[in-house]
Amino acid sequence: MPQSPNDPIAQSRFLRACRREPVDATPVWLMRQAGRYMAEYRELRRKHTILELIKAPELACEVTLQPLNAFDLDAAIIFADILPPLEGMGLSLEFVKGEGPRIHNPVRTPQDVARLRVPDPEESLGFTLEAIRLVRRELESRGVPLIGFSGAPFTLASYAIEGSGSRHYLRAKGMMMADPRSWHTLMEKLSQVVGEYLLAQARAGAQALQLFDSWVGALSPEDYRQHVLPYSRRAIQIAREAGAPIIHFGTNTNGMLEQIREAGGDVIGVDWRIDLSAAWERLGSDVAIQGNLDPVALFAPWPELKARAQAVLDQAAGRPGHIFNLGHGILPHTPVENVRRLVDFVHEYTGQQRP
Amino acid sequence: MPQSPNDPIAQSRFLRACRREPVDATPVWLMRQAGRYMAEYRELRRKHTILELIKAPELACEVTLQPLNAFDLDAAIIFADILPPLEGMGLSLEFVKGEGPRIHNPVRTPQDVARLRVPDPEESLGFTLEAIRLVRRELESRGVPLIGFSGAPFTLASYAIEGSGSRHYLRAKGMMMADPRSWHTLMEKLSQVVGEYLLAQARAGAQALQLFDSWVGALSPEDYRQHVLPYSRRAIQIAREAGAPIIHFGTNTNGMLEQIREAGGDVIGVDWRIDLSAAWERLGSDVAIQGNLDPVALFAPWPELKARAQAVLDQAAGRPGHIFNLGHGILPHTPVENVRRLVDFVHEYTGQQRP
Repeated sequence: MPQSPNDPIAQSRFLRACRREPVDATPVWLMRQAGRYMAEYRELRRKHTILELIKAPELACEVTLQPLNAFDLDAAIIFADILPPLEGMGLSLEFVKGEGPRIHNPVRTPQDVARLRVPDPEESLGFTLEAIRLVRRELESRGVPLIGFSGAPFTLASYAIEGSGSRHYLRAKGMMMADPRSWHTLMEKLSQVVGEYLLAQARAGAQALQLFDSWVGALSPEDYRQHVLPYSRRAIQIAREAGAPIIHFGTNTNGMLEQIREAGGDVIGVDWRIDLSAAWERLGSDVAIQGNLDPVALFAPWPELKARAQAVLDQAAGRPGHIFNLGHGILPHTPVENVRRLVDFVHEYTGQQRP
Repeated sequence: MPQSPNDPIAQSRFLRACRREPVDATPVWLMRQAGRYMAEYRELRRKHTILELIKAPELACEVTLQPLNAFDLDAAIIFADILPPLEGMGLSLEFVKGEGPRIHNPVRTPQDVARLRVPDPEESLGFTLEAIRLVRRELESRGVPLIGFSGAPFTLASYAIEGSGSRHYLRAKGMMMADPRSWHTLMEKLSQVVGEYLLAQARAGAQALQLFDSWVGALSPEDYRQHVLPYSRRAIQIAREAGAPIIHFGTNTNGMLEQIREAGGDVIGVDWRIDLSAAWERLGSDVAIQGNLDPVALFAPWPELKARAQAVLDQAAGRPGHIFNLGHGILPHTPVENVRRLVDFVHEYTGQQRP
């Protein structure tokens, strides 16, 4: 839904930064901000599996709000996972304790690809859309925007093909290199699923959308250009229709930053493997940037963590359109007190600097 | 040992390319070219553990020569591993079947760091030096140069601290961020161990040396600059004394390529996550380059593999100082026939182009 200029949420720091408008302080949120490092979350996880939390809208809403209640964050992100869209396509997903996600019927042959469905997101992912509606109701009065998200076509394709996490992406790259026709069909289906899912999230009330291409850094720039870019672009084109700003995030994207930009996004998310200023220089001034503290820094003593956060902020100083975040998801066991201090420091430091 | 200009090995394609001299065809070798993808190697591994193969000079010599007997490679690399130098320092190393290497007494405290020894490589790594002498005798008549190698200080430090492979390097980065004094002492010791080990390999007969910083891509450019670069530079300075060219290799080094160059090396090795031409542009013309085919491409059908190899070679065309290699080690199960065709293609294609 297009945002009215008088809507206080549309004028929030986070959404202003997405539009590269001046802000009173740099907005901050943290990837995986609802997660295992929080006692409130671990408490719920004792009673429910991850998929149960995701599929019960009231619980997903509760988890989404946990970090908002604990820290002065500038945006919420709906509690969900990148993989459930694969279930609606016909894949059987399980989160195996201690091992991570498993797909019991991975996509290996042209027939497997042909069988994949492209379902309506309201039908296959209605639980997350409903959770978004619940969270929006809660956040309206607080003036905090909500981010919806999806895994990007490449990351979802890799999971669908490999069936689990992978070190070398032998099967996924194998299909890309040896059977480009199947790869193309798979990526076309995924770009439609991803695009429509993001669009549905925006229509359900998400005021921004993040495309997570977590694994894209395993590719050469040329493979990204040929075998991924067109499909990420297509997903973004579909999602754009709602008018919500789109954050395009990947890790290890140093070799393909320009192409990621070309695929689309109002904000580009980068990890800590590149200097924020160098990344922004390459991306150009007509795009916002999100990042990029090493999540491990949250384990450091406060003076060291503070110095590192300051170094990130200094690289973005004087230029509108920076959203402070980690370079990847917050890690389990991260000290909660450091999260609180980090969030407050981002506001204090940039609020002072830009009165 | 300084190489005489009349020595046929000193005039080999590989060593000429290291010196950025014109060659009759682009030299090629493959990281982990002696390894599990070869039946001859698997046969030996049925009877011996990895450490047994490394520590018996005759066996290490035999394994080193296996790929040279099978393929038209332009260099041999001594069969060894990056971790044995840690044993001489006092760490207890085991390769656990199906899990990879384990260090039973990892380095976690200032006391652990203080206890680490800096032994003479002849005493602690004499088996590899002896293997080098044996291989040199075998290769002399074939005119093929031999590469010695070592893990770089950061990669060794990470292993020493983590005690095994790691996803987030929480403990290694933890020491770097929270106890920089211990980190400094550890890295000083490691740079001496690494430098002297490389120097000893050159003195034993290795005509080139490769520093493997396999894990350095987990770091931000600033962490590399402050906490790694000085120690890699020190190791290279020590090793240089023998006059053998040094290949400085890391993966995921896109954000710190200039600093890797600054740390030293006559040849910089890059992985497939950066276009070779873009990397060389950034490194400057006064250094040679090694790389950078995605190892997964060796699983592709030949026309696809050939096109990808050609794309790498075309990026280096017309500029002396390219050594063709993969962007990381060759993978287990790689089809042997594809290795043979790749090696021959590199020579044929570049031999035609530059008569």
